[in-house]
Amino acid sequence: MSTHRRIYLDYNATSPILPVVRDAVAEAMDQFGNPSSIHEEGRRMRSRISRARGQVAALVGRSREQVVFTSGGTEANTLGVLGLARLAERRGRLKRIATTAIEHPSLRGAVADLQRQGWTVTTLDDPDASVAAFAVVNHELGTIEPRAFSAELRARGVLVHVDAVQATGKLALAELAADTIAISGHKIGGPQGVGALIVDDAADAALPLVEAGHQERGRRPGTENTLGIVGFGAAAEAVMVPDWVAGWAAVTARGDVLERGLLAIEHVRIHDADRGRVGGTINAGFAGARGESIVIALDLAGIAASTGAACTSGSLEPSPVLLALGLPPDQALEAVRFSLGRGTTDADIAAVLDILPAIVKRARQHA
Amino acid sequence: MSTHRRIYLDYNATSPILPVVRDAVAEAMDQFGNPSSIHEEGRRMRSRISRARGQVAALVGRSREQVVFTSGGTEANTLGVLGLARLAERRGRLKRIATTAIEHPSLRGAVADLQRQGWTVTTLDDPDASVAAFAVVNHELGTIEPRAFSAELRARGVLVHVDAVQATGKLALAELAADTIAISGHKIGGPQGVGALIVDDAADAALPLVEAGHQERGRRPGTENTLGIVGFGAAAEAVMVPDWVAGWAAVTARGDVLERGLLAIEHVRIHDADRGRVGGTINAGFAGARGESIVIALDLAGIAASTGAACTSGSLEPSPVLLALGLPPDQALEAVRFSLGRGTTDADIAAVLDILPAIVKRARQHA
Repeated sequence: MSTHRRIYLDYNATSPILPVVRDAVAEAMDQFGNPSSIHEEGRRMRSRISRARGQVAALVGRSREQVVFTSGGTEANTLGVLGLARLAERRGRLKRIATTAIEHPSLRGAVADLQRQGWTVTTLDDPDASVAAFAVVNHELGTIEPRAFSAELRARGVLVHVDAVQATGKLALAELAADTIAISGHKIGGPQGVGALIVDDAADAALPLVEAGHQERGRRPGTENTLGIVGFGAAAEAVMVPDWVAGWAAVTARGDVLERGLLAIEHVRIHDADRGRVGGTINAGFAGARGESIVIALDLAGIAASTGAACTSGSLEPSPVLLALGLPPDQALEAVRFSLGRGTTDADIAAVLDILPAIVKRARQHA
Repeated sequence: MSTHRRIYLDYNATSPILPVVRDAVAEAMDQFGNPSSIHEEGRRMRSRISRARGQVAALVGRSREQVVFTSGGTEANTLGVLGLARLAERRGRLKRIATTAIEHPSLRGAVADLQRQGWTVTTLDDPDASVAAFAVVNHELGTIEPRAFSAELRARGVLVHVDAVQATGKLALAELAADTIAISGHKIGGPQGVGALIVDDAADAALPLVEAGHQERGRRPGTENTLGIVGFGAAAEAVMVPDWVAGWAAVTARGDVLERGLLAIEHVRIHDADRGRVGGTINAGFAGARGESIVIALDLAGIAASTGAACTSGSLEPSPVLLALGLPPDQALEAVRFSLGRGTTDADIAAVLDILPAIVKRARQHA
């Protein structure tokens, strides 16, 4: 294992906890109380959660009543998709859900669950869909789905769920045209295991999926993950500094440097480079090398990257996202995802570009 | 508000975070990584979760593979009940679930969900039930359900889910006769928002409820609540000191002192006092006074107690648990739950018994 400072280029998997988040969580641990309790201990915790709710609401430009805290982006995607489907059924709409072939496993899983319940899965162009569910920023490619900002689907009466987990802190979420929006704490420097579903008035009525306690106004039961929520709130506030979204331009610029450097290596593809991308996510294919071999060699050299979604890592299967782009399986297995964050420096990029040609060469020899 | 040290007698709602838990969580915040990632950052987090899994497994006397981390006791109850019901359906068994009328809202909610799916809800004596779901220790009364330790239900082929949230650290969970067991971190000094479902081999196959990421061996998807899990593990280890369960006897003894003191006040009932109880939970009825008035007056005097489950507090309805015992609604509204923990002292009990008669007298005058 390398002894120099590690370089982390896997921000789409998770991000380092921000110092303000660490402080907020540490301070919250000095108190306790069930936020539902009416006594002083309970009120104190309730007020902390209320503050965090305001911080997260501001991040997405919605009202605090629209924030439903969940155990992460996965649960938020499940609640949003299944909740909107229930709403469509109540309204007597056709059981047709429109989605894409490049979604995150959690969104695909919720759609597959509906399929088992008799729903037809279709594309975003289907004029008869009652629900649409898709990510605004793809987790493997960084590509932007413009329909997330378009009023067209909702104008047709389609209920729209947007997975904004990979867009948070990168795009202006207030401009999303959606009935429900999934976001996650740990992609923006907050703790893992906490997220939120943003719901509008109509979607509100479709929750909870299973009745239990009255928490989150009855929409998502269970004693709150108070430490996680406090940390998520602190992270949301930190990324809401006025120039935060504009500040992503600097990350995009570093990503562009990396991308140009990658293309300077022989026989390297950038996957889906012709679509609009959020910047900072580069999915590269190294012809004749296994992506996994490169990721392992990079790790030994002190650099963290990945072959695709962390939620499917360890899998020997090619990425379903890349297969959906039309790549043959052997090419899909050549992929490495580099994802940058605010902590990424020019020196990080230079170091990666310095070491990568030799690593790729060895990986090709061993393939 | 009182200025002296507060006295906390609401341990069944939540418990103070243990110092070892605070230290473990603080230390875990200095590192980061997605536990699913194959690089060093990921492996480090995976190893922390693995350690916590072993700590929780030891607490329940099961193997680590049987531990499925959840976002708390509520989700564990939902997963257990709905998972076992799915398993029963796959086996072609009758859609009959046996339960009691005194369960926690999260267990009642899961049962109600099955009822909407066409299941019949019946009692623990029903010879045709395929699934049984109940708590071993009741959250409002502290009463013990002996069938949780009996092989009888399972011998009849019934799949058994036991809610052990209020039993953890008080009874030997290794002796439970159950296919799935729900436990929670924050009742034993861990963080809120983390729990576990313990599953045996058969129940294992019924999860996940909705497919998504591969976390928790595919049984419960979503990036792990690493801070919560690390804290839960530390709490589990802390309550596993050899004399922990035996040590509960001291809490029971303090509860008995409180109970005798309560009975010395005129017209006080102890609810369900004739059933076997775990000790430390005393549900008292103050004839002619509103329980809520007493709880508020106690809070102003620096003492935290509750009228019932935190998950339903704020509700103006009488406790469904007490109504199920046969209490008329006006008597059910006279209830106050005192729940003790390891941190409760003799002085706490003496102080409560000192102030309570005057508070009860005033509450009766104002009723």
